[in-house]
Amino acid sequence: MTASAHPELDLTVSRIIRAPRAAVWNAWVDPVSFEKWWVPAPTICRVREMDLRPGGSFRTEISDDGVEFGPHITGCFLAVDELERIIFTDALVAGWRPSEAAFVTAVMTMADHPDGTEYTATAMHRNVADRNQHEELGFHDGWGTVIGQLAAVVE
Amino acid sequence: MTASAHPELDLTVSRIIRAPRAAVWNAWVDPVSFEKWWVPAPTICRVREMDLRPGGSFRTEISDDGVEFGPHITGCFLAVDELERIIFTDALVAGWRPSEAAFVTAVMTMADHPDGTEYTATAMHRNVADRNQHEELGFHDGWGTVIGQLAAVVE
Repeated sequence: MTASAHPELDLTVSRIIRAPRAAVWNAWVDPVSFEKWWVPAPTICRVREMDLRPGGSFRTEISDDGVEFGPHITGCFLAVDELERIIFTDALVAGWRPSEAAFVTAVMTMADHPDGTEYTATAMHRNVADRNQHEELGFHDGWGTVIGQLAAVVE
Repeated sequence: MTASAHPELDLTVSRIIRAPRAAVWNAWVDPVSFEKWWVPAPTICRVREMDLRPGGSFRTEISDDGVEFGPHITGCFLAVDELERIIFTDALVAGWRPSEAAFVTAVMTMADHPDGTEYTATAMHRNVADRNQHEELGFHDGWGTVIGQLAAVVE
């Protein structure tokens, strides 16, 4: 597990996924695969924009019934390092423009592990209040669930 | 002049600087030079952090008397393309962490021009209200003044 540099501000989940790094990477960058695991089932996810480059738009929507979709993530990729790391934030939108509602920067890393891939997701917040709010909203349960779903897609 | 993609959200100033692109670039990336032009004189600028890479910290302070310094920019670089482009935002701080006070993403470009270098600075805002507030606060006067100071340093 990668230690967070600021545990008082950040939340982290990590899991050994029994699949090669390329499979985990592909499950992230292919929208059809991504939609299968990005939100806890039975909620349905749709990728509206996934422009995987620094400054590129990242926008997902969610639905309970598959008919009416509402906003989920509206953000911007900050770093896309193939097979290694993806970083996005909702503090910016497409083209690095400041957003109306900033909350988190998310850092996902993939590293080789004897049993497959160590996948780590860290949520960075601006202050302790936001971090604690995110924890109370169920960060560990939610992000833990979706990483389990990611593992189920690729293993 | 580079047209802004979103004139209703962005503010832009541009100037032909009679110096080569490398000179303009160096006046940006060398803190000693940078402090000479970054804020309108007689206000004094100090570079506290200038980590010129995506995710790197950018922090400047200002002073009226050279003794007491207060905060100016506290932000994060998003793109640093040598001799071509620098982008930073105050919506994030070092390591891409969301900031407490987001207002602007600034895009500075340098392009060859028959008379030297075309330097363009664009301020991107989240909405029309922020853009108009920035204009009323004296964007064109302030950014125009400091680009004139930049020209004076390098010409």
